[in-house]
Amino acid sequence: MRALTFDKELNERNRPRPVPGPDEALIRVRHAGICNTDLEILKGYMDFSGIPGHEFVGEVIDSRDKSLTGKRVIGEINIGCGRCRLCRQHLSRHCPGRDVLGILNHDGAFAEYMVLPNRNLHIVPDCVSDLEAVFTEPLAAACEILEQIPAISGRKVGIIGDGKLAQIIARLLRLEGCDITVFGKHKHKLALLAPLKIRTANADSVSKPSFDYIIEASGNPGGMMKAMALVRPRGTIVLKSTTHHDSGPALNALVIQEITVVGSRCGPFVPAIRLLEGKKIDLNPLITACYPIHAWRQAFEEALKKESLKIIISM
Amino acid sequence: MRALTFDKELNERNRPRPVPGPDEALIRVRHAGICNTDLEILKGYMDFSGIPGHEFVGEVIDSRDKSLTGKRVIGEINIGCGRCRLCRQHLSRHCPGRDVLGILNHDGAFAEYMVLPNRNLHIVPDCVSDLEAVFTEPLAAACEILEQIPAISGRKVGIIGDGKLAQIIARLLRLEGCDITVFGKHKHKLALLAPLKIRTANADSVSKPSFDYIIEASGNPGGMMKAMALVRPRGTIVLKSTTHHDSGPALNALVIQEITVVGSRCGPFVPAIRLLEGKKIDLNPLITACYPIHAWRQAFEEALKKESLKIIISM
Repeated sequence: MRALTFDKELNERNRPRPVPGPDEALIRVRHAGICNTDLEILKGYMDFSGIPGHEFVGEVIDSRDKSLTGKRVIGEINIGCGRCRLCRQHLSRHCPGRDVLGILNHDGAFAEYMVLPNRNLHIVPDCVSDLEAVFTEPLAAACEILEQIPAISGRKVGIIGDGKLAQIIARLLRLEGCDITVFGKHKHKLALLAPLKIRTANADSVSKPSFDYIIEASGNPGGMMKAMALVRPRGTIVLKSTTHHDSGPALNALVIQEITVVGSRCGPFVPAIRLLEGKKIDLNPLITACYPIHAWRQAFEEALKKESLKIIISM
Repeated sequence: MRALTFDKELNERNRPRPVPGPDEALIRVRHAGICNTDLEILKGYMDFSGIPGHEFVGEVIDSRDKSLTGKRVIGEINIGCGRCRLCRQHLSRHCPGRDVLGILNHDGAFAEYMVLPNRNLHIVPDCVSDLEAVFTEPLAAACEILEQIPAISGRKVGIIGDGKLAQIIARLLRLEGCDITVFGKHKHKLALLAPLKIRTANADSVSKPSFDYIIEASGNPGGMMKAMALVRPRGTIVLKSTTHHDSGPALNALVIQEITVVGSRCGPFVPAIRLLEGKKIDLNPLITACYPIHAWRQAFEEALKKESLKIIISM
């Protein structure tokens, strides 16, 4: 099968079709989104080698779970051991022995076929398009904020970053009645928020430390510094960005202003699917382009451009 | 009056006795403790110049509040504007216009006399000794952890650091029924915890990320890295250390393990005084030595030694 493989550099190669284990499904991938984590992986993040890609929609070709066969699915990316305390608490996304689709020890979705455990899969409702379904994983990552901090509803929130994840989070928190300001550096990305009546500001503008919550989703190591400058004393920073850097900012401000930082990663798929199914949130404007897999070089070049939002590879 | 003044370097000087404002008390200082923050100030932290020192016990010589005159007092170190939203919410320790005793714009306690607003003062109960009373401020900083995170009671807690604040926090959390391990580098400091049946470990020992809570109180920029390695996924790090450094560790682990970090600074004096009054906590073993003010050089030299705990300057 055609696959993009990464081993110090990304290439397209012909690879054998994966063989599903007894509890796994074989999935024919239809589309896979390029996430910032993929771009960080290409810089060395997680020391990953193999097939990257973890935002996908596909069709189950083979599975012992007959309720899945032939179905259009999306999949949770963390593959826990299924036996440890965390897995038993439905926290397999924190299982210390986990593999992660396209990120850690498990080949991902930039390929014609992939495998995932049956228990990781969710059937896509008919009214959700293929391209919308690709957003389930990042939308779930946004929903994780509400799982961790339900008190954020209705509060004054600043979002650092105007990229894909920041845009999704802004749309989600708008539904929660938050008073939102998005701090970004790209006029045309910020302009996407105007029709939603979401306030925007230049990331370099000086603002008072007045926000109850700051969501750091810039994907940029400088974002945390900005977050500490904007959050009010005793406020909360939600940290979403992971970057391939060895150091971060000094944390004295956290102590002096008694700021709380909440690390936030993958989230629950079910509420994300419900939001897409109920047409509560429209993520189509975030798609910059789709490329067939043979045009993968161009796809990644586009994804690296600052003006791009979601780039999707179609198989 | 005799005073220690800092302006790029520390010296003893003769300075005029301060004149209290209408809402202030003039205090004759009896003893003042050297805190790690004082040692950081000598390295440039907060760009402070003036008289440092913020842990003290003294006697009110002059005040319009006659209930204070002649009384033995300790004092809260943050001096808010008294008018802003935070001050009105009894959070003047976060007032953006605040001064801080011996740390920011307000001369401190390493002097024969000092002034503080009457509202900052607490009368010391008779059964609390002068030297015990000096510990009220750091004990209050430890109590702040319980104010911020009442759920810590009874949980598995690791404390990074075996210095003064770490020792106080260990004693306080022991009263809360926590299962405590103190990670330190100094055998004789760790040995102080044995009679209290508090588990200790070498800070360089490798441990699993299994602690529900980690208190980072090492005063060392490497402490945060250690904290991230010891806390369980979805656990909480309480950050107590401020250091004069420009950068910190990369924060990817916070995101990946969904760790919460709670910055924690000054705390409430009333529960701290009650603990001392009720003899719930014995901090006398933490006093390494007292020095008269004229021996200030020796006092600070001792305070800088790794084997020292609390050094007190007596006027």
